[in-house]
Amino acid sequence: MPGAFHVVFALYPDVTQLDFTGPFEVFQRLPQARCTLASVSGGELRADGGMTFAHLVRLKDVGECALLCVPGGYGTVAALEDDEYLKQVHRLGSSARYVTSACTGSLLLAAAGLLRGRRAACHWAWRELLTHFDVRPDAARVVRDGTVITGGGVTAGIDMALAVTAEIAGVDYAQSVQLTLEYAPEPPYDCGRPELARPEILAAVKARLDSRGAARVAAVRRAAARLLTAEAT
Amino acid sequence: MPGAFHVVFALYPDVTQLDFTGPFEVFQRLPQARCTLASVSGGELRADGGMTFAHLVRLKDVGECALLCVPGGYGTVAALEDDEYLKQVHRLGSSARYVTSACTGSLLLAAAGLLRGRRAACHWAWRELLTHFDVRPDAARVVRDGTVITGGGVTAGIDMALAVTAEIAGVDYAQSVQLTLEYAPEPPYDCGRPELARPEILAAVKARLDSRGAARVAAVRRAAARLLTAEAT
Repeated sequence: MPGAFHVVFALYPDVTQLDFTGPFEVFQRLPQARCTLASVSGGELRADGGMTFAHLVRLKDVGECALLCVPGGYGTVAALEDDEYLKQVHRLGSSARYVTSACTGSLLLAAAGLLRGRRAACHWAWRELLTHFDVRPDAARVVRDGTVITGGGVTAGIDMALAVTAEIAGVDYAQSVQLTLEYAPEPPYDCGRPELARPEILAAVKARLDSRGAARVAAVRRAAARLLTAEAT
Repeated sequence: MPGAFHVVFALYPDVTQLDFTGPFEVFQRLPQARCTLASVSGGELRADGGMTFAHLVRLKDVGECALLCVPGGYGTVAALEDDEYLKQVHRLGSSARYVTSACTGSLLLAAAGLLRGRRAACHWAWRELLTHFDVRPDAARVVRDGTVITGGGVTAGIDMALAVTAEIAGVDYAQSVQLTLEYAPEPPYDCGRPELARPEILAAVKARLDSRGAARVAAVRRAAARLLTAEAT
């Protein structure tokens, strides 16, 4: 499609689907948008929770893109150790006009060497892990550092995508998309960030997430070490 | 899975994916949740925007469910005229403990005869069409009428699902899910409802949506007439 604005979502098994389905619903409305779901092997992909996506293309078959979006999820741990995935994210991100992420997707951008020295958002429970990659964690819901625009946990991807839409297509256009999606959120509770949640709720969620914490820290450390080695050679 | 809380998403071609991927991300976290994507023919389903979902089951093969969720989207027009789809939605909704929708999904619940005399939410641009089915349109983002809980346009599905989660699993549980999904939205603009949007933005979105308006009104009228006939016999 000549003149198309190519948006590529770089997916991996056990991704959190809302991390990219939210931004996709926004980005597909960009003028001339062409959205592609891609993964290392292409074909079908199972997200966390069991939803299966089909007809993905292979990342290595994607020539280039204008906007790269990397989602997060529990599968981030395995993706941090997937050299082919990180290589393709690095390749596409290096030439994209905009590099974006939601949730723990920023850890993957960092592991791919795309965030060195930058600020980035991440899911609150994993945000500090960005420091292993010489990336400054930022608690804002949407963080812009040049043309790298990252979102916080899961639902922050929608806010990130609307911010990016305004940058690409202007404020009026972004507002028309926001109105189309009736995005006037009314969260039932004021507890969506750790500093807002009641202590017992925060403790319960932390306890559940911490059960996976050690594996993630170990994977981040190994990925950071590999990145250092790669950059030194 | 004995003891499972079975959540069924009744899908159709050209559904708006965020209408159900948002609620799915919440509902999959319900205690004992088992989430199923289903459609008339099963298999693969293409959503509006080109995302393809795989391994759907056939609606007629779903024995029953605890919670039915019907999303909206441009495909609603065709689904309003799909007797098999409406028959299965009626069957599953009649025995479900909770009947839910996002966006124009409430028009499909209405066409399936599940909303007679009730109040319901809908996408702002199509909300008044509910009156054809003897349903009272309600501008609230989440509308509860007994065990029927409906959401407004697209992104309202997330708020709806969290409200339903609180009803099923309690407030603390719902708050833990909200925190896990870092749902502390910060929409970039305050324009997500027609009464909030600037007049020129509203006019632009209306003009675009109205291009599909006539077909939808005609389909709603035919569906309402068929429902009357069916209920009279």
